[in-house]
Amino acid sequence: MELKEAYSLVQPGLNGVEADFKNLIHSQREFPEMQKMLKQVLVGGKVVRPTLTLLCGSFYNYGLALLQPMATATELMHIATLVHDDAIDSADMRRGNATINSIWGVDLAILVGDFLFARAGGMSARTGSLRVVTLFSQTLGIIARGEVKQALSAFRLDQTFEQYIERVAAKTAALFTLATESGSVLSGAPEPSVQILHDYGYNLGIAFQIVDDILDFTGNEKEVGKPVGADLAQGTVTLPAQKLLRRYPRDNPLLKIVQKEDLNENIKKVIEMIRASDIIDECYKLAEDYCTLACRGLEKLPDKPAREALVALAEYVVKRKK
Amino acid sequence: MELKEAYSLVQPGLNGVEADFKNLIHSQREFPEMQKMLKQVLVGGKVVRPTLTLLCGSFYNYGLALLQPMATATELMHIATLVHDDAIDSADMRRGNATINSIWGVDLAILVGDFLFARAGGMSARTGSLRVVTLFSQTLGIIARGEVKQALSAFRLDQTFEQYIERVAAKTAALFTLATESGSVLSGAPEPSVQILHDYGYNLGIAFQIVDDILDFTGNEKEVGKPVGADLAQGTVTLPAQKLLRRYPRDNPLLKIVQKEDLNENIKKVIEMIRASDIIDECYKLAEDYCTLACRGLEKLPDKPAREALVALAEYVVKRKK
Repeated sequence: MELKEAYSLVQPGLNGVEADFKNLIHSQREFPEMQKMLKQVLVGGKVVRPTLTLLCGSFYNYGLALLQPMATATELMHIATLVHDDAIDSADMRRGNATINSIWGVDLAILVGDFLFARAGGMSARTGSLRVVTLFSQTLGIIARGEVKQALSAFRLDQTFEQYIERVAAKTAALFTLATESGSVLSGAPEPSVQILHDYGYNLGIAFQIVDDILDFTGNEKEVGKPVGADLAQGTVTLPAQKLLRRYPRDNPLLKIVQKEDLNENIKKVIEMIRASDIIDECYKLAEDYCTLACRGLEKLPDKPAREALVALAEYVVKRKK
Repeated sequence: MELKEAYSLVQPGLNGVEADFKNLIHSQREFPEMQKMLKQVLVGGKVVRPTLTLLCGSFYNYGLALLQPMATATELMHIATLVHDDAIDSADMRRGNATINSIWGVDLAILVGDFLFARAGGMSARTGSLRVVTLFSQTLGIIARGEVKQALSAFRLDQTFEQYIERVAAKTAALFTLATESGSVLSGAPEPSVQILHDYGYNLGIAFQIVDDILDFTGNEKEVGKPVGADLAQGTVTLPAQKLLRRYPRDNPLLKIVQKEDLNENIKKVIEMIRASDIIDECYKLAEDYCTLACRGLEKLPDKPAREALVALAEYVVKRKK
């Protein structure tokens, strides 16, 4: 199945999510500055997470009345965490748009992020499912805790592969899992199917973040929507950098980066070294393995178009260039 | 009733909240730095909000299994907002303790606040009540939106009394209302009683914040737990300052404060002028009026000790010096 077709399966739900976003902006019509800030982050987003919720809700009792608010909730939570991340990283660009903190400052970014968390939580409660609401809160806790860990380990090279996967699991796989598991729960899936879709979300999320971390070295700013080498500039040592260090434990520009010596120049060197090596191929291979793992259980689900769509999405994740 | 007796009515619940806090800290035992940060904000808090939830849950089917997690959730949400507020205000002290941002920086304060929001949300879901969970999210939205407004109107004198009350309602009364309304809902109170306790929480919250704003001018750092004049230093024009401006529209040091001219010196002058006037008495009078309003409906509730306790709490609010 083509990716386009996968999305088209859940187009009404995706339109609904967009309508929810517009309603959220409209609800602040008496507070124009707030509207401006919301527009800045709610327009032109990606749709991977809502698509996951909608597709995973397609195997049993598909009902947009519950799935749509949850799809919206998941994307809102994602956006809220990005708003806070960008404030923390002093990032200027996100998805090709100027960040809240770059226009209105860190203080307002903190508060707008909190506001979005609140609205996300409210949307999750609209599902009427306490199980889903609880999942929602747990996921936010995992993400925040993971970010605390990441912040405390910035500019440190003594991190293992397991710690990298743990970080990626908290940073990205947790929200993917929320998206897939909540979709399945809300459609009344039996527990074994919930577990299959939970695992799909988890493994796909890991693959997605590995590719994100690759793109931080191989992408260009225009495609990725943010500067290349941004992770290293924040002191975040991702898988490609870990692998480079293992190959060249001495005389490695990474050793200077963690000392914050000539940061820009040394980041450029690391990018060149990684691009010149086969590290990128290795990382893509790992992401593919996670995608294979993600899809392994899907055949046990009812034979519906959503199943092929989930496979198409997994294929896209390891192919995407931005 | 004495305040002490009011608290003692709900002592088992308050002990439970403290146990929840300890469990939360304990849950991070494999992450010592996180434990340190949580201890910094979870130890030695005030108990007004949990007490409100527990007392308001005492009129019908009192059950700690539901009330205690909600009392914990309310206080956790309160603490999370304080962590973010302090990060925004670059405040060094809170409740007599060093703030997260002063020790670990703004970035970690943002993330620890997010983590606390997540745990608060999770606790609210333990009540099993979607109505309460929805209230919880709505309240967080109101608070965050109010803070956005406050941030955007900093160092501006063109604010009306109505705008002051609106801000206070979002900043403090919303969470008081969550505390009282959720307690009543969880105890199975009939709707008219829920409304009475909702109104009690709202009006008490307004009174509480008016007194807080008074103490920012009359208190001393040791008692209040934070520097005097902190609001003005952040550009927040509260009721006493509004009143001073109305009395002395010209040659008022406030005019220089909003221009950020000799901030410390002019804040000192404003504090002296307010203390020398009868503005403080006027503000206390207003707080008392809100407390009277708060207690007006209580007589329609079942005649239980909690009723007198709520009156005692209202009396304390306008008497408190810290």
